[in-house]
Amino acid sequence: MAESRSRRAVGGGDGGGGRVRIEKMSPEVVDSNPYSRLMALKRMGIVSDYEKIRTFAVAIVGVGGVGSVTAEMLTRCGIGKLLLFDYDKVELANMNRLFFQPHQAGLSKVQAAEYTLRNINPDVLFEVHNYNITTVENFQHFMGRISNGGLEEGKPVDLVLSCVDNFEARMTINTACNELGQTWMESGVSENAVSGHIQLIIPGESACFACAPPLVVAANIDEKTLKREGVCAASLPTTMGVVAGILVQNVLKFLLNFGTVSFYLGYNAMQDFFPTMSMKPNPQCDDRNCRKQQEEYKKKVAALPKQEAAQEEEEIIHEDNEWGIELVSEVSEEELKNSSGPIPDLPEGITVAYTIPKKQEDSVAEVTVEDSGESLEDLMAKMKNM
Amino acid sequence: MAESRSRRAVGGGDGGGGRVRIEKMSPEVVDSNPYSRLMALKRMGIVSDYEKIRTFAVAIVGVGGVGSVTAEMLTRCGIGKLLLFDYDKVELANMNRLFFQPHQAGLSKVQAAEYTLRNINPDVLFEVHNYNITTVENFQHFMGRISNGGLEEGKPVDLVLSCVDNFEARMTINTACNELGQTWMESGVSENAVSGHIQLIIPGESACFACAPPLVVAANIDEKTLKREGVCAASLPTTMGVVAGILVQNVLKFLLNFGTVSFYLGYNAMQDFFPTMSMKPNPQCDDRNCRKQQEEYKKKVAALPKQEAAQEEEEIIHEDNEWGIELVSEVSEEELKNSSGPIPDLPEGITVAYTIPKKQEDSVAEVTVEDSGESLEDLMAKMKNM
Repeated sequence: MAESRSRRAVGGGDGGGGRVRIEKMSPEVVDSNPYSRLMALKRMGIVSDYEKIRTFAVAIVGVGGVGSVTAEMLTRCGIGKLLLFDYDKVELANMNRLFFQPHQAGLSKVQAAEYTLRNINPDVLFEVHNYNITTVENFQHFMGRISNGGLEEGKPVDLVLSCVDNFEARMTINTACNELGQTWMESGVSENAVSGHIQLIIPGESACFACAPPLVVAANIDEKTLKREGVCAASLPTTMGVVAGILVQNVLKFLLNFGTVSFYLGYNAMQDFFPTMSMKPNPQCDDRNCRKQQEEYKKKVAALPKQEAAQEEEEIIHEDNEWGIELVSEVSEEELKNSSGPIPDLPEGITVAYTIPKKQEDSVAEVTVEDSGESLEDLMAKMKNM
Repeated sequence: MAESRSRRAVGGGDGGGGRVRIEKMSPEVVDSNPYSRLMALKRMGIVSDYEKIRTFAVAIVGVGGVGSVTAEMLTRCGIGKLLLFDYDKVELANMNRLFFQPHQAGLSKVQAAEYTLRNINPDVLFEVHNYNITTVENFQHFMGRISNGGLEEGKPVDLVLSCVDNFEARMTINTACNELGQTWMESGVSENAVSGHIQLIIPGESACFACAPPLVVAANIDEKTLKREGVCAASLPTTMGVVAGILVQNVLKFLLNFGTVSFYLGYNAMQDFFPTMSMKPNPQCDDRNCRKQQEEYKKKVAALPKQEAAQEEEEIIHEDNEWGIELVSEVSEEELKNSSGPIPDLPEGITVAYTIPKKQEDSVAEVTVEDSGESLEDLMAKMKNM
């Protein structure tokens, strides 16, 4: 278990010749101020207290095509602390995505990322872990760092971001966050490279990764499995850049309290379609800690004054909809009813995430957003074999 | 007028120690192949001929927050040739966006970008111009490079991308492309950093930048002007990353012929709202070359067999809509009618791009997507003074 931790040294210069550390974020408009364009968000009326960004710690699991760009965006925004988890090495085969460079091939992803990010912004604290979170020993350590690796040691991190490429790692993060009551965000890109999504999971409040069958990410087959067969998933820097961008935008909105935080935002690149929705948790969820968090959330809402409680509920739950799928913006219920994507033969209690609404005659063939060309049964069978 | 041109030398190694050049794109799944994940798009049925990417030349005007990421994405995708135009220097104040690093402060943006990009992918040809395209002399040179700077010298480039931050530079690109009949794409991010857009302009076929008053970008005041007053526009790596991502995705779809190419795609980060539409050109456009291109397009359509002509028309023109605004995906006409953004008092023949449809009661205050808090009159007055 390789591990590297670094603390912010007062006046230190281990940023690698990039720039000196800055003690306090300033709004001053001079060419030498790396924070002027961010602090301007206050004058523009978008964020009331931008400096607060320095008080947050965010853990990123998976430093690949989405995770590395996510880490770079948060670093440039001046986040307080980043914890990075990955066990892969940089390869030339990763050069079709942003961030890593050819001369870094062979380095561990977390080591290469830490070096680059520290150069970009030496004000950020970094803690990197070069291991696979899904093994029993590493899982315990991972849980410990989520609970104690906050900006102040002993406090939990503020947010966990899942930027992994396989089902097992997602389930592992889900298990940890349900047990700890830790808010996290999921992200994913389809195997055919032309769609992706982000999802906010607040244990007990919104559906967890085990509440609904993760149709959307099931098409993401672990690259390791694929490579053995001499094939690989396709990927594009565009799709991964957009997914990282909407993920970090959602993180900023969540942490700095502006705009509308999305519970689910999809991206279909073929048609430039961006569905949003939210899902309430499944009371029969297989994860015992999810059910426990649901009970605690119910108690919390019951203890609130009536109006606040109604507002809290309103945020996620849609009364007319047994499965709690709420269409927040682009897609009307009518459109959903008229949707004509191939709906698989579903076992009881399971519903598809969404299909593309029928459009003009000459539009491309309707597909489910993360179409893998596989039936739900195939996917479920695959998951069981993982 | 600083200029640097570089040709692909056979077997040369001026990529700076990154990786060796690759003569032919291969789909082989090995860690050392930087193109395996892109060539996999063929096996996935997304792109029929990915290698064709190497035959295209793209000019990028403006190598800032959007342009630099756009250039990096195209470089990693293995584009044939990039022509970069900018006259700015890298500053620490740019570090809140992706791409440039602190140690590059003081270098010209095109020089710093060329060095980084060549390291990332030495298979791409680069031609960089460190000048302002809006001066008379440089404009002539710029026109010459658009007409002759294709992959094969003497042929035009395949696409021009506008990633500039001011009205004058956009109008200059528009003038050049109308005169040359050059297809281009526009991009922009609002001064408050939380919205942006991309737009495809095919002279004579879709509305040019002068056809409709560019309400959407008018709020982008030149940073130079702002700086003099000790204030600056806000910017975020997230919004700029998303705009670069949807821009390059549209470029790939356009050049490699897959998916639906968007004529206009907006991004409202506060509400995760992504409107799409298309606009036909204005027969009374002030730009004489736009009117000429419209005539030529009409002749071209008239010469086509009947069915093809109807299909061609269908792509942009919406019969019921005098202004040709066609809502392609998310927003219904009903929603547009119900939109309640502040609609300015418009001079005859002018229409707003769009406003946000009315949503739940407690949603954030309705704003025009690129709300600058200024009236149309203010904006028009400002433009005249430029």
